[in-house]
Amino acid sequence: MSAFPFEISATEGAARTGVLKTPRGDIRTPAFMPVGTAATVKALTVDQVASTGADIILGNTYHLMLRPTAERVARLGGLHRFMRWDKPILTDSGGFQVMSLSKIAKVTEESVAFQSHIDGSRHVLTPERSIEIQADLLGSDIVMQLDECVAWPAEENRAREAMLLSARWGARSKAAFGTRDSQVLFGIQQGSTFEHLRRESAARLIETGFDGYALGGLAVGEGHEAMCEVLDYAPGLLPADRPRYLMGVGKPIDLVEAVARGVDMFDCVLPTRSGRHGQAWTWEGSINLKNARFAEDDEPLSPDIACPASSHYSKAYLHHLVKAEEILGQVLLSWHNIAFFQALTAAMRAAIAEGRFAAFRADFKARQRIG
Amino acid sequence: MSAFPFEISATEGAARTGVLKTPRGDIRTPAFMPVGTAATVKALTVDQVASTGADIILGNTYHLMLRPTAERVARLGGLHRFMRWDKPILTDSGGFQVMSLSKIAKVTEESVAFQSHIDGSRHVLTPERSIEIQADLLGSDIVMQLDECVAWPAEENRAREAMLLSARWGARSKAAFGTRDSQVLFGIQQGSTFEHLRRESAARLIETGFDGYALGGLAVGEGHEAMCEVLDYAPGLLPADRPRYLMGVGKPIDLVEAVARGVDMFDCVLPTRSGRHGQAWTWEGSINLKNARFAEDDEPLSPDIACPASSHYSKAYLHHLVKAEEILGQVLLSWHNIAFFQALTAAMRAAIAEGRFAAFRADFKARQRIG
Repeated sequence: MSAFPFEISATEGAARTGVLKTPRGDIRTPAFMPVGTAATVKALTVDQVASTGADIILGNTYHLMLRPTAERVARLGGLHRFMRWDKPILTDSGGFQVMSLSKIAKVTEESVAFQSHIDGSRHVLTPERSIEIQADLLGSDIVMQLDECVAWPAEENRAREAMLLSARWGARSKAAFGTRDSQVLFGIQQGSTFEHLRRESAARLIETGFDGYALGGLAVGEGHEAMCEVLDYAPGLLPADRPRYLMGVGKPIDLVEAVARGVDMFDCVLPTRSGRHGQAWTWEGSINLKNARFAEDDEPLSPDIACPASSHYSKAYLHHLVKAEEILGQVLLSWHNIAFFQALTAAMRAAIAEGRFAAFRADFKARQRIG
Repeated sequence: MSAFPFEISATEGAARTGVLKTPRGDIRTPAFMPVGTAATVKALTVDQVASTGADIILGNTYHLMLRPTAERVARLGGLHRFMRWDKPILTDSGGFQVMSLSKIAKVTEESVAFQSHIDGSRHVLTPERSIEIQADLLGSDIVMQLDECVAWPAEENRAREAMLLSARWGARSKAAFGTRDSQVLFGIQQGSTFEHLRRESAARLIETGFDGYALGGLAVGEGHEAMCEVLDYAPGLLPADRPRYLMGVGKPIDLVEAVARGVDMFDCVLPTRSGRHGQAWTWEGSINLKNARFAEDDEPLSPDIACPASSHYSKAYLHHLVKAEEILGQVLLSWHNIAFFQALTAAMRAAIAEGRFAAFRADFKARQRIG
């Protein structure tokens, strides 16, 4: 019995909608989690993030352990209090950023050793230390096991090695985490694009037993089609009664296709990162506000979305802000994009609840011009 | 009879408090106008600006005529609609930025010619063109005459020459502006730090007749003491029954000392500019959040100010955001600083209304540690 009940209220094919219940509030699924890397969803206040309907945000263990350090966050009352976000927080384990951002990463059975990308200082992360940082010091609600995510493409042997290490680290994470009243632990499936490795990974995770299961090692360069091929079978290998979380995904079309295949949760820097670079996501696809064709476009980005950034300001104004390199342009586009991703997951939840997700999916794909 | 009635409700010595009534809303004086250079108060949404209690903001003619151009703003419905700010806007004439920002500025009796600092394009500004841009194209509520502001220190002859040209440009501005139902025109006193030039300037402006009178050519390097010496006599040379506006000022202590000498309105980039660089203004003076002494300071900047940036987040969190160069740090410190400047003018209004401004001024000076 998990500390966070997961109540699925409707399904359509593999797609499902429901609620993951936590002491800090309900997480409506399918859910998109804005990424709050360094204790801030970049460019946005917590009130702006909450106003979009986000039920949960993600914090990055790697960034926080380096600055301001997990111990300092703990002394200041934990991550929720530090950043003034009182709804649930999921923290990643730090493993992915160690591989992608830090200067030197040495992986052994025991740990991963690395140098900070900020100041070159040396650090070691073990499964146990990652649990301590996430659960005890930051105080996150959903804790992720430390895993090894291989680059894509991966040789099968290399992918198998990393999957097995991740499974052993999952068991160590579970032992360190124990059982807690108000926090839960998610395992992470690995195996790259090899079905039998994904199957073995899932079996080992289920043997250990987690409160939720993430799909790791996707959206690392394999592309939308290859990812969908993995998602044709990988979510179904994981327990149906617990949330499935596709890490680091993705574009709106990725979300829709993953939900169709049984995924419940997502996180991605895309809405905030692309917002800082002048890009907006809409029901019609993505547009770049730098484009001169918006210079006198008096319409808002998405009049149907209640967020002021989506419906209050004109594209002409946003174009001006982006061209003038005004911070407000980055703020408004980040805010709109987060609001759009929340509107998208809300629309999917409603469509599944009303048994019209197939039609929604077809219509969505027809309207999206990927740009 | 001006289109904007100015009702002074209380005075204490030279200090006064009142309301400048405009069709877009009351401006409570003493008033601080946040600067919205390029159609945005830098880093802040209009809702954030309004939430601080700001009754009016300032727009820069120089920046707007270059980008997105005044004609484009006009086609998009004017500056208020373009930036979604429905309260009053004061626009400057463009003259000061031409002198301080543009590449080449050639001043003749007729006009000032300059090259854009953005793309080197050539432009000419006349008193008549400045009125057209401000009043007809941008649609501002308070329009400023074109003037020539000399650098400090200035030779007396040079200061006199610029003062006389400004007076002639003031008369041309008035002729071009005419009389309007819902917009007003302010003249600008010049004369550097020479009392007899300030006196002659005031006399010529009064002869032309304006809806309000600005004190120009101050806060250009002369320092707080020298500015206060000019303010000992200069505001008193201007009509007591119309608003007096000290342009480009200033630090909190400058505002308090200027109000004590009869000034009603202020604008300055200081709160937003210093906010983007980690500096916060408080009742105890200014502090730099980069300083390590704030790393675990769990107190907010100003618990008595209702703005979330002032009372919701800890200095430790702001320190972290500034150190990590997060946009949210720039947003929150800009927001807090604007809120603090509004709280300061609100406190002065209340003190004058209650006949305790002298005590407020003494207490304020004692508490401020200029840093």
